[in-house]
Amino acid sequence: MSLEPAPFTADDYRARMARAAQSAADAGLDGVLVAPGPDMVHLTGYRPTAATERLTLLVVAADRDPVLVVPALEAADAEHAAGAPALTLLDWTDGTDPYGITAPLLGVGRRFAVSDNTWALHLLGLQRARPDSMYTALTEALPMLRAVKDPAELARLEAAGAAADAVYEEILKVRFAGRRESDVAGDLAALLLESGHSQVDFTVVGSGPNGANPHHEAGERVIAPHDMVVLDFGGLKHGYGSDTSRTVHVGEPDADEQRVHDVVREAQQAGCEAVRPGAACQDVDRAARAVITDAGYGEQFIHRTGHGIGVTTHEPPYMIEGEERPLVPGMCFSVEPGIYLPGRFGVRIEDIVTVTANGGRRLNTTSRELAVVE
Amino acid sequence: MSLEPAPFTADDYRARMARAAQSAADAGLDGVLVAPGPDMVHLTGYRPTAATERLTLLVVAADRDPVLVVPALEAADAEHAAGAPALTLLDWTDGTDPYGITAPLLGVGRRFAVSDNTWALHLLGLQRARPDSMYTALTEALPMLRAVKDPAELARLEAAGAAADAVYEEILKVRFAGRRESDVAGDLAALLLESGHSQVDFTVVGSGPNGANPHHEAGERVIAPHDMVVLDFGGLKHGYGSDTSRTVHVGEPDADEQRVHDVVREAQQAGCEAVRPGAACQDVDRAARAVITDAGYGEQFIHRTGHGIGVTTHEPPYMIEGEERPLVPGMCFSVEPGIYLPGRFGVRIEDIVTVTANGGRRLNTTSRELAVVE
Repeated sequence: MSLEPAPFTADDYRARMARAAQSAADAGLDGVLVAPGPDMVHLTGYRPTAATERLTLLVVAADRDPVLVVPALEAADAEHAAGAPALTLLDWTDGTDPYGITAPLLGVGRRFAVSDNTWALHLLGLQRARPDSMYTALTEALPMLRAVKDPAELARLEAAGAAADAVYEEILKVRFAGRRESDVAGDLAALLLESGHSQVDFTVVGSGPNGANPHHEAGERVIAPHDMVVLDFGGLKHGYGSDTSRTVHVGEPDADEQRVHDVVREAQQAGCEAVRPGAACQDVDRAARAVITDAGYGEQFIHRTGHGIGVTTHEPPYMIEGEERPLVPGMCFSVEPGIYLPGRFGVRIEDIVTVTANGGRRLNTTSRELAVVE
Repeated sequence: MSLEPAPFTADDYRARMARAAQSAADAGLDGVLVAPGPDMVHLTGYRPTAATERLTLLVVAADRDPVLVVPALEAADAEHAAGAPALTLLDWTDGTDPYGITAPLLGVGRRFAVSDNTWALHLLGLQRARPDSMYTALTEALPMLRAVKDPAELARLEAAGAAADAVYEEILKVRFAGRRESDVAGDLAALLLESGHSQVDFTVVGSGPNGANPHHEAGERVIAPHDMVVLDFGGLKHGYGSDTSRTVHVGEPDADEQRVHDVVREAQQAGCEAVRPGAACQDVDRAARAVITDAGYGEQFIHRTGHGIGVTTHEPPYMIEGEERPLVPGMCFSVEPGIYLPGRFGVRIEDIVTVTANGGRRLNTTSRELAVVE
């Protein structure tokens, strides 16, 4: 277990909400409307126990201080959020119309980005109360709102990456042959929790032919001698994500297995080396994909090269063909090419990388050589 | 642990979807659009691991067979849902526009109810692809869609109620005095899991003055001799909910405590006796509330009398003043009046009740007398 990092302050949240208002203005919008979920955690530190039919909505607009609309029953909880001093709370009681109460905050004829996971019930309520407003989805209008991490966020992502690396070093010591994938997945989950993660998001153990399906999680297959095994695991530590993949081999690999692994390792290296401020997201994908295509496995690399990470383990920016937005210092995302050979095995290697002025810096630093396990 | 009930069949789901289409038509709508969540579980048995930015949407309309739009990556999972044989699957691949693919299913100028928890991202996508459609929230247009349970659902709710009753009998045997509320809550959670629940939704332990806050869950307060303690616990067993409350006393109650408890018990009895087909939901609230008001505690009964239960532990119908819709055989809901005396204690008694042709039938049958615990 590691020390708790210094908590985010109200000033941290104030700065993030100001940045959101500015980003909205830059995109020709008048503000952002945010329901409970990762965007609200990021902007206010407020994490209600559940999204419900009772409206909770953060209103951030350029021309007024941020307001958090909350059910009266939950106002006491909201007041304890770390970002509450940077907010005005507006509570509403059962039996009143929360959309009618929210409408004046929106002004007339304005344009708002709405967090993706806002319930349709609430969006329809706002559209009814404020039919003159225009609404658009947050990740369509402002996909990069959470993409650039501030130094305190980067410190948490680094700590989560270091913890995941420690998990990998430990999992190399356990027995693989003769145990079920789900047993090794259980080991990974326990190690993630021991390393200070509060939440385990995924523990992929894809042995032999199961490794050839990138969406396989972990099943009842018994791992055999000579199997390749894809490991992909992560979760949240102090509210920020980890996500790393390594492929290991039970006993010594044969020449073909080693060659495929070498190709993926070179592709992952090329993807990381393509990271620099001003490059396009798709350049990272292209760099990794070129190595795999040149080696003759282009058709067997069947997913994008990477995704952002922050208060969730999958978020923008995406390293994918067609994503032309530029890399900016402070962005954090995975670089995780793979080769999937149906009926045989798969290989994937993944690090979280952050963009610095000088290029990419890996937050996962364990060996990317093909490790031999028992 | 109890035996697994017979699984729902494709015919069960086919009948539910037909009923949904008919309910929509009766309400002047052309169909319902359902995202992952309890409505989708109810109508199809399909429970994707998470609602995500990738569109999954059930389209039920009167003039065509139901269609489930799914991401291609998840099509194999969807094909395994129990309701899949009653559905046509329409999959879409990354890089194509799922809203454009869905639009032709909606026809032109039609009206649809949309499940409440559908992401705004998806509703906005549909509104863009099909601006001629009218959309309304499912629980506003068809609040009673899941309210009437079929016999197989009722059997599951009965089993969940019986399991919760067994938990109550066991919790009476544990020590209360000198232990924290959170310790007793932990006991309740463990007992719920032992009794075959797969998910624990809440374990309220409100001791002494904490019992006077109906939204208190369980805290670090040490339970004292002579405390009243509100217990309210439930979760899901075989996919259906339990939810029961009893108030217990550490040692013998004094006359005032006994009197308040008697009032709540009589109110709960009156609420249950008001249950009959054709009565309004609000009649149940009125019957329970009248007893409490007549005893002089009307201002201290600060919540509605009940809520429906099914694939979730809180859903329509609501037993509340103003809810004039009629009770129908097969509906299941809580009857849970309470009295809350700030700074002193609270009392709540709750059973799940189902509507039969002959009146209400309780699914919780443990004693409602004030139990003495140690």
